[in-house]
Amino acid sequence: MRIALDGMGGDSAPAIVVQGAVQALRQSGGAFEIALVGRRDELDRALHQIADLPSGLSVHHASQVVGMADRPSAALRQLRDASIRVCFDLLAQGEVDAVVSAGNSGATMATAVVVLGRLPEVDRPALASVLPGPSGPTVLVDVGANVDCTPLMLLQFGYMGSVYAQRVLGVTAPKVGLLSIGEESGKGNSLVKRAYEDFATSPLNFVGNVEGRDMFSGAAQVVVCDGFVGNVCLKLSEALGEMAIGVFVELLSSSALARTASLLLKSELKKLTAQFDYANYGGAPLLGVNGVAFVCHGASSPKAIASALGRAADAVRGELTRHLAEGLGQYRGSLLGEGGRG
Amino acid sequence: MRIALDGMGGDSAPAIVVQGAVQALRQSGGAFEIALVGRRDELDRALHQIADLPSGLSVHHASQVVGMADRPSAALRQLRDASIRVCFDLLAQGEVDAVVSAGNSGATMATAVVVLGRLPEVDRPALASVLPGPSGPTVLVDVGANVDCTPLMLLQFGYMGSVYAQRVLGVTAPKVGLLSIGEESGKGNSLVKRAYEDFATSPLNFVGNVEGRDMFSGAAQVVVCDGFVGNVCLKLSEALGEMAIGVFVELLSSSALARTASLLLKSELKKLTAQFDYANYGGAPLLGVNGVAFVCHGASSPKAIASALGRAADAVRGELTRHLAEGLGQYRGSLLGEGGRG
Repeated sequence: MRIALDGMGGDSAPAIVVQGAVQALRQSGGAFEIALVGRRDELDRALHQIADLPSGLSVHHASQVVGMADRPSAALRQLRDASIRVCFDLLAQGEVDAVVSAGNSGATMATAVVVLGRLPEVDRPALASVLPGPSGPTVLVDVGANVDCTPLMLLQFGYMGSVYAQRVLGVTAPKVGLLSIGEESGKGNSLVKRAYEDFATSPLNFVGNVEGRDMFSGAAQVVVCDGFVGNVCLKLSEALGEMAIGVFVELLSSSALARTASLLLKSELKKLTAQFDYANYGGAPLLGVNGVAFVCHGASSPKAIASALGRAADAVRGELTRHLAEGLGQYRGSLLGEGGRG
Repeated sequence: MRIALDGMGGDSAPAIVVQGAVQALRQSGGAFEIALVGRRDELDRALHQIADLPSGLSVHHASQVVGMADRPSAALRQLRDASIRVCFDLLAQGEVDAVVSAGNSGATMATAVVVLGRLPEVDRPALASVLPGPSGPTVLVDVGANVDCTPLMLLQFGYMGSVYAQRVLGVTAPKVGLLSIGEESGKGNSLVKRAYEDFATSPLNFVGNVEGRDMFSGAAQVVVCDGFVGNVCLKLSEALGEMAIGVFVELLSSSALARTASLLLKSELKKLTAQFDYANYGGAPLLGVNGVAFVCHGASSPKAIASALGRAADAVRGELTRHLAEGLGQYRGSLLGEGGRG
């Protein structure tokens, strides 16, 4: 297996990206190879900083770079040899099995759609995020690909999230919930109210509406919402996780006794930080395009890049794209919105 | 000053409500009196449970009760002597200065609008919530009164949140942000994009779009969003706060060393729990009705009821209603949506 990694994508590219690739290869035990895509000279320079490079790392030259602030449409038109674009070209040509990028996420998604194309039955690909929780991970979809949605789009997000939970996270018959402001079917905004019946009559394991508090409760393994709500919730969750750690760390240095205590807690604190650290939960899969694509934060750490690469490898191994296409095809009726209408 | 408290509202009414009233009176040092509204026999029984009752507590009989699951419209039509209804009747008649209820929030809001009426310039009253944060409180508005909004409604929420932050929280020239998925003016769903220009050209201290992560960062003291997004975010924040505390507590008992450490941390942990405890941040003010009304969680603790009563007293003292009416009247032009259009 071979994964194309956008070497120029991210706030601290290429250094951080290269470190992430190296970390991933060391952890994977030869499960996959990585094609680092970007300006050869810059990537080589970054690689030279690393002692005893693991095998399985190759550089694929791409002369252009999409800036974090560039408009996706402009990048698509003008930057035909941009690292992001070349990553997806390699995937379309079958030279790699997946793409991971921490670059301009708008451009990454737009390029994926244009170069790979959408799966049949999918109107709009969606970005999913795997949220950590005491009772296991929850797939939140959409987290930003589509800010204005239709009920049919939400239903498709539900299917795609469900397939992802099954095939990549290994959850059997994932519970699917519609994010709303009350559990009763009548609760929600007009979009959610309209979507509810289609979900209820679909073959999904639909558990009804779930609330903000259920996003980490395990009430559902797949939580569906429009990309505006999902993106706001994702950033809010990340911020609260960091805030919680910050508060606790501050607390542990707030007095002599506390500092003593913190020494006793060293190992527990590591566990805690890990639980709240989004870097452990990989990038966000772009569901509904014809291929495996993962989008990472621009501020991703090497660990976050590495875990996204590992998650992408899981998706390839789980044949995510094939199962998405089959799953969606199978439910064509309800996906066309007929589900709720018999 | 006299505050009407819905004695029958809340999951554990009247016991918890009565305890909250008593706690509030003991803390307030005679700053206000409380009229407990509800079934006299049940309230008296709850009051008899309490040793040395503080002065300033009276019972006002109301024969009916709105159930937590009752439909607001039905409650309004059929339950003319419900405790919630009587609370607002007392406020409309000038016999009390504010209302606090932990009962059916839909019915509480609907009753407030019908009995008190809306302030001029206000299309739809909004529910605000004060979020705790390391850099001070943030007013999130709307958190559930209006699930589908127009740009004009958001602008009005911004004004009302701004006046609340000034008059009740004592923030001078509060920074107002529009909750979105990116800071650039072009980012957001169609609602936010349409609202942006009106905010930008309004007399508000508008700082542009803020993201989910800014809700606790102090980037803005007033964060505006539709009631669907706000409600989801509020419940998500509460759940994450509880989860964080749960994780800490579990961590502190996870080993002999950790248990020793937790003994050293006793006082710091108290502070921490307080910082994450929503009970310290009072109820949610219903802004835009002609009177001071606070809505509390059905699951409110006595402490939460007490802090809502204290916050309501602050609002009365700060002449919130008068300042809302004046502030909104002053900006009539932009409130009518002309702001963005010169």
